[in-house]
Amino acid sequence: MITGKNYIGNQLKASGTTTHKTVNPKLNMQNPTDFYQATLEEVNQAVVLADSAFKVYRKVSGEKRAEFLNAIADEILALDTELIDMYMSESGLPEGRAQGERGRTVGQLRAFADLVAKDQWRNVTIDQAIPTRQPLPKSDLRKTSIPLGPVVVFAASNFPLAFSTAGGDTASALASGCPVIVKSHAMHSGTGELVASAIIKAAEKTGMPNGVFSNITGSGRVVGSALVKHPKVKAVGFTGSIAGGRALYNLGAQRDEPIPVFAEMGSINPVVVLPNVIKNKAAETASTYAGSITVGTGQFCTNPGLLLTIAGADTDAFVKDLAEKTVAIAPQCMLHPNIKDGFVSNAEVVSSQPGVQVVGQITATVEANFAASTICAVSGAEFLANPKMHTEVFGPFSLVVKAKDQAELLDVIDHLDGQLTGTVLAEKEDFDALPAVADALQAKVGRIIFNGVPTGVEVCESMTHGGPYPASSDSRFTAVGLGAIKRWVRPFSFQDWPTELLPTELRN
Amino acid sequence: MITGKNYIGNQLKASGTTTHKTVNPKLNMQNPTDFYQATLEEVNQAVVLADSAFKVYRKVSGEKRAEFLNAIADEILALDTELIDMYMSESGLPEGRAQGERGRTVGQLRAFADLVAKDQWRNVTIDQAIPTRQPLPKSDLRKTSIPLGPVVVFAASNFPLAFSTAGGDTASALASGCPVIVKSHAMHSGTGELVASAIIKAAEKTGMPNGVFSNITGSGRVVGSALVKHPKVKAVGFTGSIAGGRALYNLGAQRDEPIPVFAEMGSINPVVVLPNVIKNKAAETASTYAGSITVGTGQFCTNPGLLLTIAGADTDAFVKDLAEKTVAIAPQCMLHPNIKDGFVSNAEVVSSQPGVQVVGQITATVEANFAASTICAVSGAEFLANPKMHTEVFGPFSLVVKAKDQAELLDVIDHLDGQLTGTVLAEKEDFDALPAVADALQAKVGRIIFNGVPTGVEVCESMTHGGPYPASSDSRFTAVGLGAIKRWVRPFSFQDWPTELLPTELRN
Repeated sequence: MITGKNYIGNQLKASGTTTHKTVNPKLNMQNPTDFYQATLEEVNQAVVLADSAFKVYRKVSGEKRAEFLNAIADEILALDTELIDMYMSESGLPEGRAQGERGRTVGQLRAFADLVAKDQWRNVTIDQAIPTRQPLPKSDLRKTSIPLGPVVVFAASNFPLAFSTAGGDTASALASGCPVIVKSHAMHSGTGELVASAIIKAAEKTGMPNGVFSNITGSGRVVGSALVKHPKVKAVGFTGSIAGGRALYNLGAQRDEPIPVFAEMGSINPVVVLPNVIKNKAAETASTYAGSITVGTGQFCTNPGLLLTIAGADTDAFVKDLAEKTVAIAPQCMLHPNIKDGFVSNAEVVSSQPGVQVVGQITATVEANFAASTICAVSGAEFLANPKMHTEVFGPFSLVVKAKDQAELLDVIDHLDGQLTGTVLAEKEDFDALPAVADALQAKVGRIIFNGVPTGVEVCESMTHGGPYPASSDSRFTAVGLGAIKRWVRPFSFQDWPTELLPTELRN
Repeated sequence: MITGKNYIGNQLKASGTTTHKTVNPKLNMQNPTDFYQATLEEVNQAVVLADSAFKVYRKVSGEKRAEFLNAIADEILALDTELIDMYMSESGLPEGRAQGERGRTVGQLRAFADLVAKDQWRNVTIDQAIPTRQPLPKSDLRKTSIPLGPVVVFAASNFPLAFSTAGGDTASALASGCPVIVKSHAMHSGTGELVASAIIKAAEKTGMPNGVFSNITGSGRVVGSALVKHPKVKAVGFTGSIAGGRALYNLGAQRDEPIPVFAEMGSINPVVVLPNVIKNKAAETASTYAGSITVGTGQFCTNPGLLLTIAGADTDAFVKDLAEKTVAIAPQCMLHPNIKDGFVSNAEVVSSQPGVQVVGQITATVEANFAASTICAVSGAEFLANPKMHTEVFGPFSLVVKAKDQAELLDVIDHLDGQLTGTVLAEKEDFDALPAVADALQAKVGRIIFNGVPTGVEVCESMTHGGPYPASSDSRFTAVGLGAIKRWVRPFSFQDWPTELLPTELRN
């Protein structure tokens, strides 16, 4: 059923000649389909269609947009095992993860459908006229939120469903009234095409304008750059590396008309392990964190890549136990040979810095694209002095920093880059230290977690999945949770506007 | 009382040697005080102080911040005639305007005080834990809004009080919990120093940390650039020209850590005059608009610089009447010789384009910095073909476009740049045309006004003062109204955090 073509609106097109194939990392071989990179003319067609669809789609009622989103969820489920099999063949991830991620994707679509069906998300305010006010009468002012226009979404490598073609960025943008053009991820173009076909079917079944969705394929930077630079594109969503996100952010900022590029990028997600946890709960904590470090082969943006402790004999024993438990978990497949290469070389960079001790590492030969989990340790002073140790190692890797005391631990936090999350593990006896740790973390992260793990990002109103740069390109927004819709809308005011011409949510 | 020095926190400093003087435009002569441009070391001191003040100020309660804002308002009022006289001597604006703008400034400070005293502006949401959820328990998640960090505010030339030292940007940033460093406007540095002294007094009286406010002087781009590039600065607010705003936006985007630069820039504020208004209410409309075009010597960002009409004999008569009434209003002083020069040259650029007819212009010799109000007219086709006519002429100038029909009028709107406002003047008989006009305007502006004038920006919850680029650098925010606080805050989530350590607004 896979054609390897682009969806330019509801038409499959492939007039170009540049192709790529996806890879089955478990088998370490290419999958059969040739995917055709969109030509610049096809890119332009997709954007022009999106712009013309916007004129209609921005006025489609919330109820109808909810129908569309729910229909996308239905069509994704109808792809059934074809989608699950394709997902596994392009990601190396197991069936349970594929099903779980599909459930999350469908759940996100339905959550945004519920949000916009009721039209109460628009942050509506009404200030009624005061004609008798002195010295000047007050006008009637009413504010709502309106969609920005066509949005380009870059699919993420590490969530082929939940942060990709019909993932959180697409769901929130379509919910807001913005057409979406997805730049499909080259590592899972087949999964992307299947999901795109589901969106196109849903759009046709629910009567959405052609161009409300397009799916663009390509393996280099050419089509992505062309999309971000196109004058009719009004916003961009991205999940991925700092280098990729920053390049797109720069393109957005350099346009004649700058546009918002929301990029959710790297994070090492510091976890502060306070002394009494190590004293009272070392074994349990080591087991929990061995699991969190290796889950999904460590390929989560919330993977705990940095554990901050206070040095001591108990801490050394804890780190050794953590390393043994991590290494004892069977190695798992990574998403793609390139991801594996990046993991190996970044882990090597950090482990080879002076003062870094490799406490545990899988040393047996692993299969081609499988990852050898690694736990390293270093002193606080050495970590502070060496920015290379602050680099994200995307995969099952964690660096334990052993600060000499609480003050040095706080100093380490103060010197971190921006992060998605910060976690504190504490016992009652550690509570005196908590406010200072929480203050330091708050300046650096978007979400703090108490006695838990950063992996696992709940989709709900109160979630913040973002944070100071480089965790995201704009800490004022979130990529996960219902608040994600705010990235794609702007406030709009009506002054003394006739009631019968106001949008329904602004009438008395 | 004026020293010409910078406030680096609560200390007056002037270790540099570069100075400038302000100009009294009515007298066309310099005022006496030498203002000392801050040295780069002083700029750095101000930012370092702001960063250290932030660690305290971000945790100051909403009630205490409200006290601070109200104290600023009180201290500004206590400056009494000294402030009013200084304002007039540096702006050429009349006493009534000075008093009105002071009232607005004080009103804004008190409105933000009321907003944050109650701590209900933080968009708090609470998702309680569901420990029994399958397959995984749900964590307790609570979201609030926290301040970004030190904010740099660039004072505007055209509102020496309401958009300057203690204007809307400063009031909203201080309200949110961000320290503020003002780059004082070189044209009204004396007014700026007086207001800065009021803020410093208020900070001391209400026990705010030193560094919560600084006032930096300088006449070129050096200190402004240094402020925006400083790594400890986390956001910027600006009101002024497209060239100035875009330059700062670029600096913000090019930093290692990019920061949001909210720039409210130029706008020509199109006014659509539908045919039956010209038929039924031509004289009244001409009088109202002659007033709106010339109020404040046309130096408002919401000045109606573009009137869109449908061609015809009635329209010609209306334009002639509008021109006569505009020219009949006595010429007024502009803010500064540079502003006058810009007005003359930009008005000349637009009026000299092929097809543009100067319908009315004050031809008598005006005083040195006074403006000769001008009304021009052009056909829709010529306007569409010539982007030079779309340029903002800052001052009492308006261009009337005579479209050949409704379709051409809509085409003209579709070809405009982003605008702060769009206005529609319509009679009942014009209502059929309204939805199409409103749709076209909505894509281009932040606020639409029915049967009114765009000048006069109400400070209330439902105001949007922003719009698509270049009206603002980010249409998702507003510079006026209580929503302005959202520019300076980010969402922050607590997961399973102990109740006793949560901020008060997040407790059950």
